[in-house]
Amino acid sequence: MDIGKQSISDWFKSLQADICRGLEKVDGKENFLSDEWQRDEGGGGISTIIQNGTVFEKGGVNFSAVSGSLSIPALKSLNLDSLLSGSNKSEFDFFATGISIVIHPLNPMVPIIHMNLRYFELDENVSWFGGGIDLTPIYIVEKDAAFFHRELKHICDKHDPDYHKTFKNWADDYFFIKHRTETRGIGGIFFDRLSESENKSLEDIFKFVKDVGNGFIPIYSTIVINNKSTSFNDYHKKFQALRRSRYVEFNLMYDRGTKFGLETNGRVESILMSMPPVAQWEYNYQPAPNSAEAKTIELLKKGIEWHSLP
Amino acid sequence: MDIGKQSISDWFKSLQADICRGLEKVDGKENFLSDEWQRDEGGGGISTIIQNGTVFEKGGVNFSAVSGSLSIPALKSLNLDSLLSGSNKSEFDFFATGISIVIHPLNPMVPIIHMNLRYFELDENVSWFGGGIDLTPIYIVEKDAAFFHRELKHICDKHDPDYHKTFKNWADDYFFIKHRTETRGIGGIFFDRLSESENKSLEDIFKFVKDVGNGFIPIYSTIVINNKSTSFNDYHKKFQALRRSRYVEFNLMYDRGTKFGLETNGRVESILMSMPPVAQWEYNYQPAPNSAEAKTIELLKKGIEWHSLP
Repeated sequence: MDIGKQSISDWFKSLQADICRGLEKVDGKENFLSDEWQRDEGGGGISTIIQNGTVFEKGGVNFSAVSGSLSIPALKSLNLDSLLSGSNKSEFDFFATGISIVIHPLNPMVPIIHMNLRYFELDENVSWFGGGIDLTPIYIVEKDAAFFHRELKHICDKHDPDYHKTFKNWADDYFFIKHRTETRGIGGIFFDRLSESENKSLEDIFKFVKDVGNGFIPIYSTIVINNKSTSFNDYHKKFQALRRSRYVEFNLMYDRGTKFGLETNGRVESILMSMPPVAQWEYNYQPAPNSAEAKTIELLKKGIEWHSLP
Repeated sequence: MDIGKQSISDWFKSLQADICRGLEKVDGKENFLSDEWQRDEGGGGISTIIQNGTVFEKGGVNFSAVSGSLSIPALKSLNLDSLLSGSNKSEFDFFATGISIVIHPLNPMVPIIHMNLRYFELDENVSWFGGGIDLTPIYIVEKDAAFFHRELKHICDKHDPDYHKTFKNWADDYFFIKHRTETRGIGGIFFDRLSESENKSLEDIFKFVKDVGNGFIPIYSTIVINNKSTSFNDYHKKFQALRRSRYVEFNLMYDRGTKFGLETNGRVESILMSMPPVAQWEYNYQPAPNSAEAKTIELLKKGIEWHSLP
């Protein structure tokens, strides 16, 4: 089977359509609006956006396939320069395709979700897959957290006995808001630069990436349906807005996809579709002791074995 | 006159008290809350915060004086490594003191203001002043914009005929949201690494810094009083929230003070007091053609000679 650029980007595009249909079904009201865009330097994408839905307050499912050249300083700023040691070229061709999703539900009892899956090529030397999926509950419901992580473990275990442990820990480290010393949410899996190795072909890795992508709707739909009818009031909405500000801080300060997109002159509105509809900052906010808010914040740390919870 | 560390930081501290009193007088209701904090590695500061005032929805006036050591990688990440070429040390002592202000008014007709004044020493080799003041109107009122820039020009001109042109252009470049290709607001002045030179002593520079600092209350009070009684509604508040999100993007992605603070293990709540109370993101927001909103956005560009407007 040929798994060239085109077939990979075609698959990401079809996944985008499937996920939009799946989310529309759960939302019941709002359809996604679709914006197709071209990038001057090469390639383009399709941004699909939901706003003011019944269940989803704001969200986006982006597909893109872009190509162009990267200079040495650009490679350095993206931490890619080590790949090309020995080369005396000053510009390198790249190709990047993938799908990126962030969904901000209206109801604070329904978690924010993010998934990104991507394929990257640099010159003819380098090709890899990367990705991640992580859940950010405003109020953690332990049985949903356990379900989320168990499902991801199940997908990982089908492909490699080491994947889940490695990728779960990687997510803990990646989705971490350093200056707050707290994780963004309950994590999930994260992986990067998965390339051909002795015991894995690029095709094997693509199969894993497909299983993660196809898992998105069944997993997230279940969690949304479990919680979308839970009642909430202004007090919960305020806490949601305060937590969404941490999501903003992570995405603008640490997220590599945001950085890569902006550095490579990507489409700003597509990249920043990850921003919440509303965020709130309050000086030195502290939740009341033993409150539901305090309980969630206490659980925003690395190393919790969520999949082992009952 | 001795202008050692202590006298400089004492002056910044007294300026903080003066500015808080001045802002309280304009607000009429809310007093500043004051938090004194220590930094484990050395030094500390006083954060004074206003929230839910009559005029000021959220704001902070921070004073700090911190010291410690910076490693070569830390110096590199702060773009300070070039200063120490030739040295074979791996750690350098630093001292930094200053005042930092961001005020988010409730009424969208009153501009956001920011001022930062700072003094920095590295080992015994390097000492300089830096700073800046810039105005971010949600709705630009041209006569206030002209007044703001004329007052800054007046202060600059008292000290050096080149200051205003240089520092105004520097502000245009610094307070620029690269990925949006728009300025944060109407700019002001920005200067950095002003050290002793042939025709300026460090004392001369300190005098200039003092004049800028002492100008804050008279200048900003005038602008606040001109606009605080202008009526507004939810429509204007929404536009304010959308514009505040650009302020968030600038501060988290580009602001050097934020970066320096977080890299040197500063107090997070004091550094991020600059965040607005509420911010809103809407996918691909476009103002109505010829609206007041469109007019303001059109003016968010470099090179406008605001001080020459009538």
